[in-house]
Amino acid sequence: MAERGPRRRVTIADVARHAQVSTTAVSKVLRNAYGASPAMRDRVKAAIEELGYRPHAAARAMRGRTFTIGVLLPHIRNPFFADVLDGVNEQLAGTSYQAILVQGGGTDLAAESRAIEALIDRQVDGILMIAPLTAKSRLEEVAAEMPLIVLGRHERSSAYDAVFDDDDAGTELVVRHLIELGHRRIGHISQRCPGRGRPLALPHLTRAETYRRVMDEHGLAAEIAIAVTSWTEEGGYDGTRELLARSPRPTAIFAGDDQAAFGALAALHEAGLSVPGDMSVAGDDNTKLAAMANISLTSVDQDGVLMGRTAARLLLERVEGRAAAMRFSVTPTLVPRRSTGPAPADQG
Amino acid sequence: MAERGPRRRVTIADVARHAQVSTTAVSKVLRNAYGASPAMRDRVKAAIEELGYRPHAAARAMRGRTFTIGVLLPHIRNPFFADVLDGVNEQLAGTSYQAILVQGGGTDLAAESRAIEALIDRQVDGILMIAPLTAKSRLEEVAAEMPLIVLGRHERSSAYDAVFDDDDAGTELVVRHLIELGHRRIGHISQRCPGRGRPLALPHLTRAETYRRVMDEHGLAAEIAIAVTSWTEEGGYDGTRELLARSPRPTAIFAGDDQAAFGALAALHEAGLSVPGDMSVAGDDNTKLAAMANISLTSVDQDGVLMGRTAARLLLERVEGRAAAMRFSVTPTLVPRRSTGPAPADQG
Repeated sequence: MAERGPRRRVTIADVARHAQVSTTAVSKVLRNAYGASPAMRDRVKAAIEELGYRPHAAARAMRGRTFTIGVLLPHIRNPFFADVLDGVNEQLAGTSYQAILVQGGGTDLAAESRAIEALIDRQVDGILMIAPLTAKSRLEEVAAEMPLIVLGRHERSSAYDAVFDDDDAGTELVVRHLIELGHRRIGHISQRCPGRGRPLALPHLTRAETYRRVMDEHGLAAEIAIAVTSWTEEGGYDGTRELLARSPRPTAIFAGDDQAAFGALAALHEAGLSVPGDMSVAGDDNTKLAAMANISLTSVDQDGVLMGRTAARLLLERVEGRAAAMRFSVTPTLVPRRSTGPAPADQG
Repeated sequence: MAERGPRRRVTIADVARHAQVSTTAVSKVLRNAYGASPAMRDRVKAAIEELGYRPHAAARAMRGRTFTIGVLLPHIRNPFFADVLDGVNEQLAGTSYQAILVQGGGTDLAAESRAIEALIDRQVDGILMIAPLTAKSRLEEVAAEMPLIVLGRHERSSAYDAVFDDDDAGTELVVRHLIELGHRRIGHISQRCPGRGRPLALPHLTRAETYRRVMDEHGLAAEIAIAVTSWTEEGGYDGTRELLARSPRPTAIFAGDDQAAFGALAALHEAGLSVPGDMSVAGDDNTKLAAMANISLTSVDQDGVLMGRTAARLLLERVEGRAAAMRFSVTPTLVPRRSTGPAPADQG
């Protein structure tokens, strides 16, 4: 156990003293450099093992590998990201790799850029970016420097691997579910897109597009109503208040994700409306809270743990030398719960 | 913008070529080493600026500072940690420092030890540990190597700074609140303590101790009922089922923290019990979800953002040279909401 380890960190000088060689000799062995005899190599390696010496990551970096993978998260507040990270850690368990995380900055593109630079500066062996906002061209620049996996975006690239939810299929499932329950006025909550109109293949754009398409295919184009806020509790609350102000108001809301759906449930409770009697609500991500008996939120399951495990596996493959780009998508399933029900009889 | 940056990373060789000096000379300037003339220094610095060269973190580490602080989190699932991290990032905004996070491993002490080693290996300038499980002696070893702030533990140490909630005061507020509402059979949900019986000054131990003390002071020692699970939704659910199996069952539950309280609400809903009619429920941490109208959970507010801001400020002070240990505690407040109410009339 680390708790019983030596009080002071073992240094290269300790190793040299123990092996009765010079620190330069130890350094040579560590770097696998020319000029270290097999005998000296054995002596130094034995000393390293006996003393439990761990070369600093920086020193290891000089030899080409830090055994660290960097993970960029928009923020840690979304429980779906926790599922992804659980998957990453499951995949790394038993390897020498450790994940370090950097928080992007939500919808702040400049903060995200700084966070990406910080990861590159840490000399990680590879990077996993979760739903980054950065332009594809920049992602390809990063991928030219080091192995890169992008989770949650749909673009094709020959420079990095992509792991994503099939958002199109997921949204189709949930909107059709609401239509089959008799709903016609189905509102949707989406997010603002940062940046200056660059087309980004982010989940919220795919979900909004699919929502429009499915509504249209069912002759409900005139009923399309999108509130653009953010996928947070606050955003779901505000978006729902916006949708409630319409006349006639919707009878169902596809909130975009579960966090926004939790905010929607709060806004409806405050407005004295019953769920699903007056209004059906559906989310996306199938977070743990959605499954709780008192919340019981209909949601789309996209298996974040599996996505995280896959992303970590692909990243290690790239670190080991694979260059061909791969794409991996998870086919979502609908999890109907008590927050969705038949449309009220009096809907116009 | 980073998006318009050069396709290839600028190297030290590029700087040397641009400044028309040797790479050794550039390296000397970077290391601030003896033998670099003022004229050469100016030329190299101009080239660095023109090309936008950023020395690798490892190279900077050789010069003594990486401008990185490491944050150890038990896991990212607890929304209170997100508040703390928001505070950390607020405090670092505008400085050259970047926070990198490492996830400990919940209650897995070995995983936490590995995560701490990983941070030390990254040569961060200082470490903030949030509710670590590691023995105090090990914390002091780490503090001997680099600046350390410990958030959420109560021990005194001359080696590191401590930032903590006054858990004793917080629990006293919530248990007294329940007693004043007429409750006598008040249950509590606590966590298992990892390790081998080492005394750790972690919040759940303080809260359990204070719960016992306040119950005892009000002549309710015979009514003490603690379910030991974990402070997660699942743990709160299981703990509540355990408390409900008692006869007579409690009329109120202090769930330890908000996540456990959410699980408690789900278990009560499933059991067909009304809140607060049949059972009052209180949490701790005053997370955003607790404030949502449909949940409306009574909780203890300990201002995680302020704790995070303070911890980051103290850490940068230590990085700049402060050696004297400081302690900072946040005085909590009770936020009563609809999940707590008068005890049922028929309680024995």
